[in-house]
Amino acid sequence: MAKKNKRVRPAARLPKGFRDIEAAELRATQAMLAAIRETYERYGFEGLETPAFEYTDALGKFLPDSDRPNEGVFSLQDEDERWMSLRYDLTAPLARYVAENYDKLPKPFRRFATGTVWRNEKPGPGRFRQFTQFDADTVGTQSVAADAEICMLAADTMEALGIGRGEYQIRVNSRKVLDGVLEGIGIDPADAGGAKRLTILRAVDKLDRLGAEGVSLLLGGGRKDESGDFTSGAGLEADAISRVLSFVEAGAEKGTDTLNAIAALVENSETGREGVAELRQMQELFEAAGYADERVRIDPSIVRGLDYYTGPVFEAELTFEVNDEKGRPVRFGSVGGGGRYDDLVARFTGQSVPATGFSIGVSRLQAALAALGRVETNAASGPVVVLVMDRSELPRYQRMAGDLRAAGVRAEMYLGTSGMKAQMKYADKRGAPCVIIQGSDERESGEVQIKDLIEGAKAAQSIADNKEWKESRPAQVSVPEADLVEEVKKIIARHC
Amino acid sequence: MAKKNKRVRPAARLPKGFRDIEAAELRATQAMLAAIRETYERYGFEGLETPAFEYTDALGKFLPDSDRPNEGVFSLQDEDERWMSLRYDLTAPLARYVAENYDKLPKPFRRFATGTVWRNEKPGPGRFRQFTQFDADTVGTQSVAADAEICMLAADTMEALGIGRGEYQIRVNSRKVLDGVLEGIGIDPADAGGAKRLTILRAVDKLDRLGAEGVSLLLGGGRKDESGDFTSGAGLEADAISRVLSFVEAGAEKGTDTLNAIAALVENSETGREGVAELRQMQELFEAAGYADERVRIDPSIVRGLDYYTGPVFEAELTFEVNDEKGRPVRFGSVGGGGRYDDLVARFTGQSVPATGFSIGVSRLQAALAALGRVETNAASGPVVVLVMDRSELPRYQRMAGDLRAAGVRAEMYLGTSGMKAQMKYADKRGAPCVIIQGSDERESGEVQIKDLIEGAKAAQSIADNKEWKESRPAQVSVPEADLVEEVKKIIARHC
Repeated sequence: MAKKNKRVRPAARLPKGFRDIEAAELRATQAMLAAIRETYERYGFEGLETPAFEYTDALGKFLPDSDRPNEGVFSLQDEDERWMSLRYDLTAPLARYVAENYDKLPKPFRRFATGTVWRNEKPGPGRFRQFTQFDADTVGTQSVAADAEICMLAADTMEALGIGRGEYQIRVNSRKVLDGVLEGIGIDPADAGGAKRLTILRAVDKLDRLGAEGVSLLLGGGRKDESGDFTSGAGLEADAISRVLSFVEAGAEKGTDTLNAIAALVENSETGREGVAELRQMQELFEAAGYADERVRIDPSIVRGLDYYTGPVFEAELTFEVNDEKGRPVRFGSVGGGGRYDDLVARFTGQSVPATGFSIGVSRLQAALAALGRVETNAASGPVVVLVMDRSELPRYQRMAGDLRAAGVRAEMYLGTSGMKAQMKYADKRGAPCVIIQGSDERESGEVQIKDLIEGAKAAQSIADNKEWKESRPAQVSVPEADLVEEVKKIIARHC
Repeated sequence: MAKKNKRVRPAARLPKGFRDIEAAELRATQAMLAAIRETYERYGFEGLETPAFEYTDALGKFLPDSDRPNEGVFSLQDEDERWMSLRYDLTAPLARYVAENYDKLPKPFRRFATGTVWRNEKPGPGRFRQFTQFDADTVGTQSVAADAEICMLAADTMEALGIGRGEYQIRVNSRKVLDGVLEGIGIDPADAGGAKRLTILRAVDKLDRLGAEGVSLLLGGGRKDESGDFTSGAGLEADAISRVLSFVEAGAEKGTDTLNAIAALVENSETGREGVAELRQMQELFEAAGYADERVRIDPSIVRGLDYYTGPVFEAELTFEVNDEKGRPVRFGSVGGGGRYDDLVARFTGQSVPATGFSIGVSRLQAALAALGRVETNAASGPVVVLVMDRSELPRYQRMAGDLRAAGVRAEMYLGTSGMKAQMKYADKRGAPCVIIQGSDERESGEVQIKDLIEGAKAAQSIADNKEWKESRPAQVSVPEADLVEEVKKIIARHC
């Protein structure tokens, strides 16, 4: 029997591509989400939480890098044999929600959402199958004032998180202008079900990583990468390639210069002209609101990988440098993006409902804040630990912990059965700012010892001699039990 | 082609048993979760977030009302054909986490977790297949001081949420004492793989709902309910039934009286005596900390449905009355519970790791707060809406909204294309405290109109005549544009 039990014992391990998030990271994430939420609410966006599951047909197939049906999605059959899938983003569920509740919603409808999404992809280092997104979308208006607002919201959000002006930039382009460029080189956006257009867009999207030369190859015959893998190209002629490149490289210092340059490139396309007019209107709003400085900028190299965008597209880029895996300095890059998508609700209702939105990749943004050293770490964030010197006095120690909590101090009584040394080790591991010690001597004289662990650790570095250490008892004070709470508060205040 | 598109259009609806959570409810949930988190952190608990998926074998089969394998769980096969399941509670993933990370954890390890869990059950009215739990667990100590601490934490949490003293009670019992009672009537807890014990426990668990008579039937030959459905009983003799009932009804006003009464009932069982000793130790801690008043109470009728508890069990009961679906007053009842479970980590490692924990059903607790009228509702919580009177002046309106936001005021510019009347309707729907109006007249004189919608709605009730209404323009003021922010802040302060 014992042997059998042993055989069937499960291994304690997570499924591949999933991870646990522990206290310090979780606390930083919570603080970050709260700051984003506060900013979004200030802009009038309202929270919405949709469930993890949607019917598979309602979710649709809009994954950025997945062309085959169901690829990339976790799906299962419900008891009535209908397929359900875990959401892979927060946009598809929003489209379903809007279609289902259209009549009762205020129009336009501004909603924000934060939540877990799942991708059934091959996991890799730093590549997880569950992560958190934070989205803001405005549904029900064609006005590009909505797009402009979302760009300014994105800028304010970066600053609310402590990313300084100049360390980020919101970059804006328009799919209509891009389509105008394609029209100019004789490509119908709908060719081959839009596949050719998408190949071109994705080639341009790699400008940052591959440079103009690499993109040229992907726009033309194809490109062999360092590992020898060949990616076939869009098959454009040299002239067409150079027109596409001159468009994506048309970004100038001043927004109006950029707009004039791209206007010249699409002047023969109605779609292109419409796109330029929309960007001009957005630029005017950025200028009026004072965001046309280093915060928001028209940039023709911004494309975004998703097929469904129909108008302005935007990307939040972090412009500071970090070292890549080989130690070379690289720009941190994108932490979020979005754009206008006017056809997602029409999938359900047949009626076009214009919409625009922006999505933040939460863990990537958090990595950026960590790289900038902007993640709040509080040396005194662990709980005060009340040591148990005498197990028959548990109620007494419990009361001390209770008194500290009642005063708003994080505190706990040691709950294990080990001795003094192990308890001190435990307190260190917990990040306790101080420990409370009351042996029988102190109890009889109505006193407690408070040992400041942060101060103690500093003192330990400057005291070499063990004897000297024991005699000086650095950072340890004896106070009347009645003064416990007040003294502890002083110590914590000192380290905050 | 158009016809084909129409045929394949998906319906916009949620899968059965799932729901969307909209802004007002979501805001209340967030506030609730923050208050719980703050209390748990004060007690020294640390956050942990495990992913939605676990390997099915790691998750185990611990659903309260599901005896068949895989029943109640959403499962799917990973690409390597291994089964993964969505977590159905937060305890099983904690056991996996502790087994996987045992060496690096502080011991004891206090962790809290909040998150979504899924149950693949038949949905019904108010019965969803996705919901949120909030758990606190202490792992790695046998000391019942840990159980006592969790009971006091539960009490403090209720009060942090605004549930007053006397409106709730934390009730405590012990599985060891229950097993002692069973021993006294000749039942080995392990009989029939523990199935008989579980039948008895679940019968007792229905005392609140069925009364002593109903429980008697379930302990004996079985019970036919109002609809005629028959539930077979535990098959106990009359004498055994009366001993079980005299135990579960042994609760007295004073904790020590209860303890003496149950001690007498299990005096011949070693397990039973051990259970009573533990409860006495907990009672001592409750008394020392001042929680042995109406807050925490030993109550032998508390059983909890889960099989895996091994020691103290507890339940957070709300004692106030609400009306049931037939309009009859009933006690609100349980909003959370837990207990000691010493064998969950041993499933993985073979080594027993003692643990105890408490789980709150978030939506049930939120329903309780709503019933008590303790959900914060802020009349001025909607955004200020800047109306668009002249579309060529968008940048100007946009700037007003921006100025308000910069001052910390929720504000938005109307983004649709409708006229004045529709815009006012929109502002009402958004719960706007006021709207900002600037037509060409006001613009030329450098003024803005601010219309207080909350005041206006009140005034409208007392003004019958449409003409009088138009002339008096209640709750509308004209101020210099430079005073906009200040005036809006005054109006909002008035309605908070």
